Amino acid sequence: MGGGSANQSDLKAAYHLGELVAQNGWILLNGGRNSGVMEASAKGACDNGGLTIGILPDENPQRASRYITIPIITGMGSARNCINVLTSNIVVACPGGPGTLSEIALALKYDKVVILFNYQENRLFERYHQTGQLFYADSPEEVIAEIDTWIERRRLQ
Amino acid sequence: MGGGSANQSDLKAAYHLGELVAQNGWILLNGGRNSGVMEASAKGACDNGGLTIGILPDENPQRASRYITIPIITGMGSARNCINVLTSNIVVACPGGPGTLSEIALALKYDKVVILFNYQENRLFERYHQTGQLFYADSPEEVIAEIDTWIERRRLQ
Amino acid sequence: MGGGSANQSDLKAAYHLGELVAQNGWILLNGGRNSGVMEASAKGACDNGGLTIGILPDENPQRASRYITIPIITGMGSARNCINVLTSNIVVACPGGPGTLSEIALALKYDKVVILFNYQENRLFERYHQTGQLFYADSPEEVIAEIDTWIERRRLQ
Amino acid sequence: MGGGSANQSDLKAAYHLGELVAQNGWILLNGGRNSGVMEASAKGACDNGGLTIGILPDENPQRASRYITIPIITGMGSARNCINVLTSNIVVACPGGPGTLSEIALALKYDKVVILFNYQENRLFERYHQTGQLFYADSPEEVIAEIDTWIERRRLQ
Repeated sequence: MGGGSANQSDLKAAYHLGELVAQNGWILLNGGRNSGVMEASAKGACDNGGLTIGILPDENPQRASRYITIPIITGMGSARNCINVLTSNIVVACPGGPGTLSEIALALKYDKVVILFNYQENRLFERYHQTGQLFYADSPEEVIAEIDTWIERRRLQ
Repeated sequence: MGGGSANQSDLKAAYHLGELVAQNGWILLNGGRNSGVMEASAKGACDNGGLTIGILPDENPQRASRYITIPIITGMGSARNCINVLTSNIVVACPGGPGTLSEIALALKYDKVVILFNYQENRLFERYHQTGQLFYADSPEEVIAEIDTWIERRRLQ
Repeated sequence: MGGGSANQSDLKAAYHLGELVAQNGWILLNGGRNSGVMEASAKGACDNGGLTIGILPDENPQRASRYITIPIITGMGSARNCINVLTSNIVVACPGGPGTLSEIALALKYDKVVILFNYQENRLFERYHQTGQLFYADSPEEVIAEIDTWIERRRLQ
Repeated sequence: MGGGSANQSDLKAAYHLGELVAQNGWILLNGGRNSGVMEASAKGACDNGGLTIGILPDENPQRASRYITIPIITGMGSARNCINVLTSNIVVACPGGPGTLSEIALALKYDKVVILFNYQENRLFERYHQTGQLFYADSPEEVIAEIDTWIERRRLQ
């Protein structure tokens, strides 16, 4: 998850994260739009043969990124943020605005594992960090390492 | 689209329709549950190497059919019927109850092409049949023929 | 529930139904828009001191009828039809298009009592009529009589 | 908006806020459940003759607070948080968990005025505070004063 507009550094990081997700054989799901972190991460996955799912807020697919393999058209505006989160096994939040913040919050509410990528630590998230639901990562590689750890932990359960 | 419970004949037809959809290289999307027309059509597609998407009404994936490649978890109950319809290029309605009827209605509302499969003609649908938005088919092969016709027509536009 | 566009006769009937709903002290809920059966029924209720609730599809209230006391803004398009139905004790369907048909179907799905007002009998609804879930009425007064019967029946349970 | 569970001090503050909202003749809208800040604020309003609207997440009204005059039944889980925010003129966030945080975020996204009641200042909200969209209040009376200021400002526009 991440902002519809983003600076070059964040876009580059999102693109690289998309690359790594695809190289690991995982499916990348995001908000599906043709801008910002959504487009960049989808392009990164797509350029590496990854499958990408976009949960779009609009009633028509015109604003879907062309790097989205499977556009899901909801027509529900930001209510689709719930679907983004419920459908994901792990939620990675890249820098973004209030839409991204709502997805972090909904993910915590739905007991999903959350990885904050390039977010500063914040008092609001502290208790979730302490209970092992929320993690911080500073690079795409660290995000992947956290996901690997989570997969391994789940395998052992 | 179609009922969560269905008789043997309808299940067999749904399975065969799923087979044909996959053999044509198309993606099959339905309500995703592990019962009735949803499971049968997904299994038919899956057994033929097809990609299947299920838009699930629940908040958790427990009732998803195992023949669904990509479960989308909405947690929105029947409000997800809108997503089924908006995300589809063509809506094929197999026999079902009021849920399926709501999807036919929403598809007509959203200007989607609708194929009624094994439905008797009905006064309610007459005007949409006359304007070329709604079609009747009595076999999986006829459904496929209608879809082919629609694809061809769109290509020529 | 009813169409966003309607002929004079249907608008007049909807207005009168709204009047009777208000005179009975009941709350009128509909799709809330400033057109068709929605506006007419809301005006009928409003002119008689009734409370009116509108469940609006858009993200902004601009298209809300001014006869709606309480506009609920959903931003979810036709997915809000589910809310219309779930929030109502009884669903009265006036003549309308596929949106109204979807509300009839969803009401049947959610086990709500449905009164079809100025609909011809139809094979699709026959089984719900036989099980006592769906009724036909030809005038606003008949709609009210059906509602009274339902209230009385529930009181005796 | 606020948590489904809350401590005595927060419940008391929510109750008093509900009282003041009703005494000002305003309508109180919240998530409608029979617990926590939702029930307390609805009771405060109700005990003072106020109108209360509850946007409920479930498909049935069993968990609605009895202090809710108008329960809106969505069946959409936390997707209903969008409706809470879109339908409100001003969003007051009382202490709560991730559900409340998602409502703050969605309110900021939808350009609503947000008043954080008994929240500590936080870096995440800083830029919205600086642009005059988000305010802090430490007592029900301060919340009301902020609302009065907003009403006055809007009147002068």
